[in-house]
Amino acid sequence: MLSGLQLPERHIALIHPVDLPAQFVAAVQASLSPIMTIEIPARDDCKTLEVLGSVLSKLAAANIPRDGAVVGLGGGAATDLAGFAAASYLRGVAFYTLPTTLLGMVDAAVGGKTGVNLPEGKNLVGAFWPPRAVWCDTDTLATLPDAVFREGAAEAYKHGLISDPSLLERVLSPEFRPGGAILEDTLTDAIAVKAGVVTRDLTEQGERAYLNFGHTLAHALEAVTDHAVTHGDAVGYGMHYAALLSRAMGGADLTPHTLAFLNWQRPAPLPPLTFEDVMPYMARDKKADAQGVRFVLLCDLAQPYLTRVPEPVLQEAFAEWQVQMGRLPAAH
Amino acid sequence: MLSGLQLPERHIALIHPVDLPAQFVAAVQASLSPIMTIEIPARDDCKTLEVLGSVLSKLAAANIPRDGAVVGLGGGAATDLAGFAAASYLRGVAFYTLPTTLLGMVDAAVGGKTGVNLPEGKNLVGAFWPPRAVWCDTDTLATLPDAVFREGAAEAYKHGLISDPSLLERVLSPEFRPGGAILEDTLTDAIAVKAGVVTRDLTEQGERAYLNFGHTLAHALEAVTDHAVTHGDAVGYGMHYAALLSRAMGGADLTPHTLAFLNWQRPAPLPPLTFEDVMPYMARDKKADAQGVRFVLLCDLAQPYLTRVPEPVLQEAFAEWQVQMGRLPAAH
Repeated sequence: MLSGLQLPERHIALIHPVDLPAQFVAAVQASLSPIMTIEIPARDDCKTLEVLGSVLSKLAAANIPRDGAVVGLGGGAATDLAGFAAASYLRGVAFYTLPTTLLGMVDAAVGGKTGVNLPEGKNLVGAFWPPRAVWCDTDTLATLPDAVFREGAAEAYKHGLISDPSLLERVLSPEFRPGGAILEDTLTDAIAVKAGVVTRDLTEQGERAYLNFGHTLAHALEAVTDHAVTHGDAVGYGMHYAALLSRAMGGADLTPHTLAFLNWQRPAPLPPLTFEDVMPYMARDKKADAQGVRFVLLCDLAQPYLTRVPEPVLQEAFAEWQVQMGRLPAAH
Repeated sequence: MLSGLQLPERHIALIHPVDLPAQFVAAVQASLSPIMTIEIPARDDCKTLEVLGSVLSKLAAANIPRDGAVVGLGGGAATDLAGFAAASYLRGVAFYTLPTTLLGMVDAAVGGKTGVNLPEGKNLVGAFWPPRAVWCDTDTLATLPDAVFREGAAEAYKHGLISDPSLLERVLSPEFRPGGAILEDTLTDAIAVKAGVVTRDLTEQGERAYLNFGHTLAHALEAVTDHAVTHGDAVGYGMHYAALLSRAMGGADLTPHTLAFLNWQRPAPLPPLTFEDVMPYMARDKKADAQGVRFVLLCDLAQPYLTRVPEPVLQEAFAEWQVQMGRLPAAH
């Protein structure tokens, strides 16, 4: 497990969340021989400027040089934080990731987006800083709770909706599970969707925005609940909202797909929320420009586009979304 | 003064230090019509992760969009902070600078280095984020104290030492002053040295490091005095130390030049310092790599090179430097 890794850099700082199983950390340490290991808070609690400052100070105090490297081991939040530390320490040192969650493998570790949250919203601060290499060891997935796996499947399913519809059925298959027969192939194809998009458009001048399908409401749900909702669960909820908007704006009805996914995913329930609670957070979305908020919608499967949506449409779809979300099966 | 500026962006955030003369700020506001103006602490007090976080939160709360712009108005510290905010907000928005000090014009505003300090040392965090445009209005220089001008001349003199020796005599001329006959031409040539270097080597893979002549000790002096020493004064002191090292390592004796500059600059006096006080900060310099600290030295005028220096040489030159610095004329 995660053994036999070799890096050209001599001074390596390993960063991982405090709740990572000790055997992962020990295996990576034995392989990489980092000169320092920095523990950060679990999950999104690490994605703050305060944690970033503490990590940067530790790198500086240890005199990690410009030709050193930062290795991020853990879930998507940990690798986002570690990547931004690598991007900004001495204005940039080498970065590597070892994602340990499905979400980290399919989404966070590929594509070079790094960063932290602000009290005002998710991922509002960061840098494009692609890792020099990403190692995915699917053995790690079996050691995590089922809920963490199902949460992370949201991004793989999203890649099905926006680009590769063959993924939709495969993600919902009983064999898409840790150790399952189709896990590695499905994961490979889901990563390939993102890798293709970001290779063509690293800094989100165009099609990269399509990867944000479902994320406008998702980021708002995360911010308004102070991250009590996990990212993958929020994306599950957000994809269904985006499907309702897509239909309202004249596209195909893809809500059976997004509901099927939610029935499979069984996300944690949401607190009572009004449209007025979430709208200010949606307005702060990075896809907003001088003319207003934009959403990624689908004309049909694999046909994404970016558009502004009139506020009455946003409001009406939100009401329908709320009713339907109240009828989901009990949480995972 | 600073009038008639036009930017393509509609949402502009203007950032300036709290002690900037009100007429500068008003003139720029009248010209740019920013939707928000953010005041930051004066001088290096703004270059912290805490101030960065506060600026980023204000940009987010005002919903500055991805196609907005950040404009940094002020000295080098203010434009360094504003530039890093622009680089990291939404993973990067457009950035413009209006430097108001000689130091800002000759050094900070050109070249794309942005960032903040850590308790562990200067400029240890940041990004390469070149401004889309820089406006230098030399009328602003006359409104600042003489000491601020003399401080900033250190970087222009440094450009003389490492690249364009014609600058050495010109910087020390009575006509190199606000409103002086040779101010603009000398400034233009001093900026051209830096612009040429950074155009060829933005991310400091090679010759850009030469711009750090004098800066290894300078950064240590700033850090060890908690920035009581200004950057320009520190560079004045640091260039003389680098000249002593250059001679000790077999180069030409350029100490008459660096002493002549210090006699002209009249930097603020230093507190009593030992070699042991400054060495840990020099060891943390960004030019350090896995093999140790490196210095930019000069074989002769305009012949810079990067090298490691044995610690006994560092120590002996420090002792000589200390004696000579004790004999400088009274501070400006």
